[in-house]
Amino acid sequence: MRVLMCIPNISEGARLDVIEQVAEAVRGIEDVQLIDVSPDADHNRTVLSYLGEPEAVLEATRRMALKAFEWIDMTRHRGSHPRLGAVDVVPFVPVRGCKMEDAVEIARQFAAFVGDLGVPVYTYEEAATRPERVSLPDIRRGEYEGLPDKLADPDWQPDAGPAVFHAKSGAVVTGARWPLVAFNVNLRTTDLALAKRIARAVRHISGGYRYVRAMGVELVEQGLVQVSMNVTNYKKTPLPRVLETIRAEAARYGVSVVGTELIGTVPLGVLEQVARYYLQAHDLRADQVVEMALLQ
Amino acid sequence: MRVLMCIPNISEGARLDVIEQVAEAVRGIEDVQLIDVSPDADHNRTVLSYLGEPEAVLEATRRMALKAFEWIDMTRHRGSHPRLGAVDVVPFVPVRGCKMEDAVEIARQFAAFVGDLGVPVYTYEEAATRPERVSLPDIRRGEYEGLPDKLADPDWQPDAGPAVFHAKSGAVVTGARWPLVAFNVNLRTTDLALAKRIARAVRHISGGYRYVRAMGVELVEQGLVQVSMNVTNYKKTPLPRVLETIRAEAARYGVSVVGTELIGTVPLGVLEQVARYYLQAHDLRADQVVEMALLQ
Repeated sequence: MRVLMCIPNISEGARLDVIEQVAEAVRGIEDVQLIDVSPDADHNRTVLSYLGEPEAVLEATRRMALKAFEWIDMTRHRGSHPRLGAVDVVPFVPVRGCKMEDAVEIARQFAAFVGDLGVPVYTYEEAATRPERVSLPDIRRGEYEGLPDKLADPDWQPDAGPAVFHAKSGAVVTGARWPLVAFNVNLRTTDLALAKRIARAVRHISGGYRYVRAMGVELVEQGLVQVSMNVTNYKKTPLPRVLETIRAEAARYGVSVVGTELIGTVPLGVLEQVARYYLQAHDLRADQVVEMALLQ
Repeated sequence: MRVLMCIPNISEGARLDVIEQVAEAVRGIEDVQLIDVSPDADHNRTVLSYLGEPEAVLEATRRMALKAFEWIDMTRHRGSHPRLGAVDVVPFVPVRGCKMEDAVEIARQFAAFVGDLGVPVYTYEEAATRPERVSLPDIRRGEYEGLPDKLADPDWQPDAGPAVFHAKSGAVVTGARWPLVAFNVNLRTTDLALAKRIARAVRHISGGYRYVRAMGVELVEQGLVQVSMNVTNYKKTPLPRVLETIRAEAARYGVSVVGTELIGTVPLGVLEQVARYYLQAHDLRADQVVEMALLQ
């Protein structure tokens, strides 16, 4: 069983008929499972999630992009989220039986497909061609409106497609990354400064764990504060280790952990890891999980 | 998605051609996944595990039984494990989207099918018709050799099929139960008496948790002892609670937990439970697990 996930972000969050047509393009591919469609009207942006065998996911992504290019016109796009194009970001994520190299290869094939349509493409994260293209915010700086200048810059020649501004579709960023786990830890205090201090203690940018992004947030209605995190590589920075660090930091101030939240999809690997760590089930394997047998 | 599991135990553990034919009868049913076949020559007994949609699992079980009845002759059966018949025990286990009542209903249908073949059937656990038939060892007392007397006893009239001894096939016990989790906790000591004392502290029979069976075992090669358990209803007696009790009991004697083992198949629900308990992810749902999306 080889499973790849794709989580494209398209620049349409309001016209539900357009979003439905894009989703339908994915559903049309047998062996691909569309698991979520989340439109956001304020951001004027929709996130789709689907998964399946890598070649089928690539085909679904090609059809998804053709449909989005057809209906989305970037010259008319307004929205509060940074974006470069109609098919803004297309990350491929290895889920099971797939290596990162497989995901990178699929991303490159998708980039070539889009480039052949005359739309410039940048590849990011694990599919980046140079260090300054690893980070999505770095690539997206200047946004759609800055694309003509960017494409004229020798340092920002696209990884696929022509260095020519495509007014209707903008540019595409595609690549491969590990699954991102949205993990929030709620603390029994209203002291936002403490949540911010702990966020700084665990996040990479300020000296913490390599694969953690974090910020302190107030949960006004619950009378709590939260350390809100994205763990970008849970295999290398395990959630239990991060939780125990937060617990210890909070305890220094007499504050305890109320609970945690895992938002959105969670790889089975996270649950295996939690059982290995806390249940001390050191040799647990995913293929022991009864439900996994149905996928073989 | 509705998934039922069946884990029949048949009275043949040596003739691999017979075991293969029985396994093939299960494989022949589309939408049923045979996940394990474990023959034991000493016990002269084989455990099969398969799962799928309830009606498909019932059909696979009918064909499995017909094949086993064809090739196994109890008048010639020898083995060290207690048994009543060729198709000795057939538990149905609700895995996902199934209620216990669904599993009981399938067990009753299977009992009726076997009864119509002229083989006496007892139903046990959640499908038991009276309290003294809940426990498998109680039903199996006297074994195959005692069946003629048992069938003559007014208290042991079968739940399906005739009260007539079937020399070739013996009797069948079928029913429904929760998944059984084999969970072992290894302790950093060679003191077997301590493992036995802790086993008594957690097991139901001597005053412990309702759904725990336990014994103390020596792991000679590793220089450790083990509390070896079956948890017969992990939803009502959660594994983390049992582990923490064992940890506390061991700590009274200065002994720590080296690690634990989950043997064989593990319901995804166990991993959810571990994450809810230790990661304090109180609201985690199985349908957030990426891999589960593939089953929908």
